[in-house]
Amino acid sequence: MSMTASTTPTTGQSRIGVTGLAVMGANLARNIARRGVPVAVHNRTSARTKEFMEEYGDEGAFTAAENLADFVAALERPRRIIVMVKAGAPVDGVIEELSPLLDAGDIIIDAGNSHFADTKRRTEECAERGLRFMGIGVSGGEEGALLGPSIMPGGDPAAYAEVEEILTSIAAVVDGTPCCTQVGPDGAGHYVKMVHNGIEYADIQLIAEAYDLLRSVAGLDVPAIAKIFEEWNSGDLESFLIEITAKVLAKTDEKTGEPLVDVIVDQAEQKGTGTWTAIDALQLGVPLTGITEAVFARGLSALRDERKAASTTLAGPTPGGGADETDLVDDIRQALYASKVVAYAQGFAQMRAASAANGWDLDLGAMATIWRGGCIIRAQFLNRIRDAYAEHPDLDNLLMVPYFTEAVANAQDAWRRVVVKATEQGVAIPAFSSSLSYYDGYRRERGPANLIQGLRDFFGAHTYRRTDTEGAFHTRWAQDGAEVRTDA
Amino acid sequence: MSMTASTTPTTGQSRIGVTGLAVMGANLARNIARRGVPVAVHNRTSARTKEFMEEYGDEGAFTAAENLADFVAALERPRRIIVMVKAGAPVDGVIEELSPLLDAGDIIIDAGNSHFADTKRRTEECAERGLRFMGIGVSGGEEGALLGPSIMPGGDPAAYAEVEEILTSIAAVVDGTPCCTQVGPDGAGHYVKMVHNGIEYADIQLIAEAYDLLRSVAGLDVPAIAKIFEEWNSGDLESFLIEITAKVLAKTDEKTGEPLVDVIVDQAEQKGTGTWTAIDALQLGVPLTGITEAVFARGLSALRDERKAASTTLAGPTPGGGADETDLVDDIRQALYASKVVAYAQGFAQMRAASAANGWDLDLGAMATIWRGGCIIRAQFLNRIRDAYAEHPDLDNLLMVPYFTEAVANAQDAWRRVVVKATEQGVAIPAFSSSLSYYDGYRRERGPANLIQGLRDFFGAHTYRRTDTEGAFHTRWAQDGAEVRTDA
Repeated sequence: MSMTASTTPTTGQSRIGVTGLAVMGANLARNIARRGVPVAVHNRTSARTKEFMEEYGDEGAFTAAENLADFVAALERPRRIIVMVKAGAPVDGVIEELSPLLDAGDIIIDAGNSHFADTKRRTEECAERGLRFMGIGVSGGEEGALLGPSIMPGGDPAAYAEVEEILTSIAAVVDGTPCCTQVGPDGAGHYVKMVHNGIEYADIQLIAEAYDLLRSVAGLDVPAIAKIFEEWNSGDLESFLIEITAKVLAKTDEKTGEPLVDVIVDQAEQKGTGTWTAIDALQLGVPLTGITEAVFARGLSALRDERKAASTTLAGPTPGGGADETDLVDDIRQALYASKVVAYAQGFAQMRAASAANGWDLDLGAMATIWRGGCIIRAQFLNRIRDAYAEHPDLDNLLMVPYFTEAVANAQDAWRRVVVKATEQGVAIPAFSSSLSYYDGYRRERGPANLIQGLRDFFGAHTYRRTDTEGAFHTRWAQDGAEVRTDA
Repeated sequence: MSMTASTTPTTGQSRIGVTGLAVMGANLARNIARRGVPVAVHNRTSARTKEFMEEYGDEGAFTAAENLADFVAALERPRRIIVMVKAGAPVDGVIEELSPLLDAGDIIIDAGNSHFADTKRRTEECAERGLRFMGIGVSGGEEGALLGPSIMPGGDPAAYAEVEEILTSIAAVVDGTPCCTQVGPDGAGHYVKMVHNGIEYADIQLIAEAYDLLRSVAGLDVPAIAKIFEEWNSGDLESFLIEITAKVLAKTDEKTGEPLVDVIVDQAEQKGTGTWTAIDALQLGVPLTGITEAVFARGLSALRDERKAASTTLAGPTPGGGADETDLVDDIRQALYASKVVAYAQGFAQMRAASAANGWDLDLGAMATIWRGGCIIRAQFLNRIRDAYAEHPDLDNLLMVPYFTEAVANAQDAWRRVVVKATEQGVAIPAFSSSLSYYDGYRRERGPANLIQGLRDFFGAHTYRRTDTEGAFHTRWAQDGAEVRTDA
C-alpha cells in the first residue's frame, strides 16, 4: 500500500488505530496488522507516518492519517485508539486533542509507561466525557512489541471485551495461553506493569552482583562467565535475562578486541519505573528491599567521579584469590536463585497489598501466567508462581509455599557462604545481602522491634503494646517510672 | 494567672501566640513564657485551654483566648502565631481560619511535622494574601519542647528576624551556641527536620540490630546488654539514643519482674517521616540505603502473624553459642559506629542534593551544629560533622574527610566480622549489611553496572557509553551485531 493511496482514508474501515509511531508504537501497529487487522496509523509529525508507510506499508492493511481528524474518521465504531507516546503530559495532550473528535463509548488505550495514578485520573476524566479509557502495560521492548509482548490491560471489562481479540492475538503465547489478561479496573494494568519493571530491576541487579562475584572473587574472565550464565540458563534460573546476559558477556568489542562489557561505562541509567515501584512500596508499608536496593545501586553507580575519588581513599580488602572455584560458582548460582525468590516474593506481596488498598481484586497467579512470555522477566520460574497461587489464592508470601520453601532451604547455606565471602573480600552485594536479611527477618517469630517501641515510648511517649495483655501502655520514664495504660 | 482573668484578653500585649495546646504546643508555649515572653494561647476546644491555664497559668504571662479573634487581638504586631496541630489538612484549616483575621506582614509559623512540599505551597498561598509563612522543624519530643528543643526554621529571613530572639532563647544550647538557625527559604526547615527523623530511624534500627546480636549471637542477657550500652555511651557512640537504650534495657517490668523489653510486642510503629525521607531520596536519585532499610524493617516487624507462621516453616540456622564474647561485643560496637557514619553520610548527601535541587543553599555544617542538642539524634559525633563541613563546605560525602575515613578504616574489619557472623547465624541485619554494601560500592572505581547497561541496550536499545570515547552507542544485537553511534 502506498502513502498516496493511504492518505485518502477509507472512513470507518480500520478496526483499531495507533497514534505515536516511535519504535514501540510502530511495532505494535505492525504486529496488529500482521494478524490481518486493518490499522489506522498517525503521528504528530506526519513525516514519521510517511516513513512508516514507506518502510512497513506492505506488511498489512494500514491507513495512514496526516491529522487526528482523518485518523478518527478512519476507524470503525466504537473507535479503538492506542496511544503510544511519552508518559506524562504528552498523554494528556493527546487525550485533549482526541476527545472532541470522539463519540460516547469510544475507547482510548494508553499503552505507554504511565504511572497508575495518572491512569486512574484519566479514566475518571474520560468517563466524564462519555469516553472509555484503558491503561495497558506492554512489556517486551521493541522486539516484543513486534513479535509478541506481554500485555497487562487495565480498565472497564466491557471496554476490554472490545479489544480482547486483538490484544490476545498479538501477545506472546506460552503453552497455548496468550500472555494477556484483563488485570483489573483503571490503573491496575499500569500498576502491574510497574511492579514487573521493579522486579526486572532486582533481577538485573542480582545478575550484576553474580557477575561481579564471578569476576572479582572467583577470578574468572569474561568469556568463562558468559559460559557459566549459558549453563545456568538450562536450570532453575532459565530466563530471558540470564540468556541475554550470556550473550552480552560473550560479545567482543569490534574496536578493541576486548569483551564489550569492558568498554561500557559502569553507570546504570534508569527510566523511573523502578523508583515508582519502591516509592509505592514505601507508601503501602510493604518491605521491598530487593527492588529498592537495586534502584539505589543504580544511583550509586551514577556517582562515577565520587567513586573514583573514594577508591583511593577508603580502606577495604582487595577481592580475589584463594577461592575453590567450582564450589563458589555453584554457591553463587544458588545465592542468585534464593535472592530472586525473595525479590519476587516481595513484589507479589506488594501487588497483594495494592490490590487490597485499591479494591482491584488482582489474580496474582494470572499475573505470573502472563509474564511467562513476551516480557523482560519471562522465565520458567513463573510457572512455579502460577502454581503457587492456583493452590493458595490467598497466599501471604511466596516463600511459604512448599516449592519455594524447599528451594530456599536447599540454597540457603550456599547463599550465606556467598554473602560471607563477598563481605570478607569487600565486594558490594546490596541485593544479595538485603534479600537474605529479609529472609532471616521474616522467619523470626520475635525480632528486636520491641526495643524500638521501648525507645519510641521513652523519647516520644508513643506507647507500646504488651505481649501478655491488650491495650496501649506508656512508662513514665522521666517521672516515677510507672507504667500507665493510655487507651482505657 | 486565673482563667477568668485571662479570658478578657489584653489587646496587643502578647509577643507571640500558640494555637494547638496538645502536649507539644503546650510545652512550647510554656518554654517561651518561662523566658519572660508574654504568650497568647488558644485551642480549638477551649476546655483544653482552660486545663492548660489551670495547670500552667502561673508559669508566665499567658493570655488565654477562647476563640481565634480574641487570640489574634491579644498579639502585638506584626503578629507571630505558632501553629502546632496535626500535619496535613488541620494546618490548612487553621490557616484558612486565621487569614481573614490577620494583617499584611503577620507571621504564621507551622511548628508541626509538615511535609516540606506542603510548607512550600503554604508559603506561596500566604504570600498571595500578604502574610508571611514559616515552617519550622522542632525536635526533642515533649521534654525537648519544654526544656530546649532543636529548632530548624525555614522561611523568609526577614520573617525569621522577627522571631529569632524568641526561638533561639527557647532552643537547647550546646557550648554556648543555641540549637536554632535559619535553615533556608520556604520548605527548607521542614525538609531538614524530615531528614533528621530519617537519620533517627537509621540510628534506632542500628541500635536494634546491635541489641539483637548481643542477645542472639553473643548470648548476653538484657541487664548485661544494658550495661554495655551504658559503657558505649562514654565513647564515640555517646548520644541520647545510646543513653536511653541503656535505660530502656535496664527497666524491669513491674508486673512480671522480667526486663520490660521482654514484654513489649516486637512491632515497630511509625509516623511517616522516615517514609517521606526514603521517598524523597528515591525521587532525588540519592542512594539512601540505611534509612530505607530501617523503614522497611519496621514494615517487616509489623507482619507479626506472618513471621510467626514463617518461623516454623522457613529453614535457617539457630543463632547463639561459641562466640568469644569480649571480642564480639567490641566488634559489634565498631560495626554500629561504622554503619552510623554511613547512615549520616547518606543523609547529608541527600540534604546536599535537595539543597541544589531546590536552590536552598543549605549550610550542612550548621545543620550538624543545631542537631548537637535538643533533638533525638543529639550526639558528640555531630561535632565531627560540623568540623568536616567547616573545613570542606562542598564535601560530596562525609566518608571522604580524614576523620571519618580513618574511623571507618579502623572499624571495617570488625564490621565485616559482625556481618559475617550474623549471616552465618541467620540473624537479620538489614541496616548493618546494607551500609557495608554501600561503603564497598562507594569505594569501587569500577563496579558491575557496565553489565546492566549492556543488558538494557540488548532488550530495550537504551544505549550505553564507552570508556574510550564520547557518545551514546547501541549494538544491533538482534541484527548484524554491529555497534552504531546513536547521538551523532
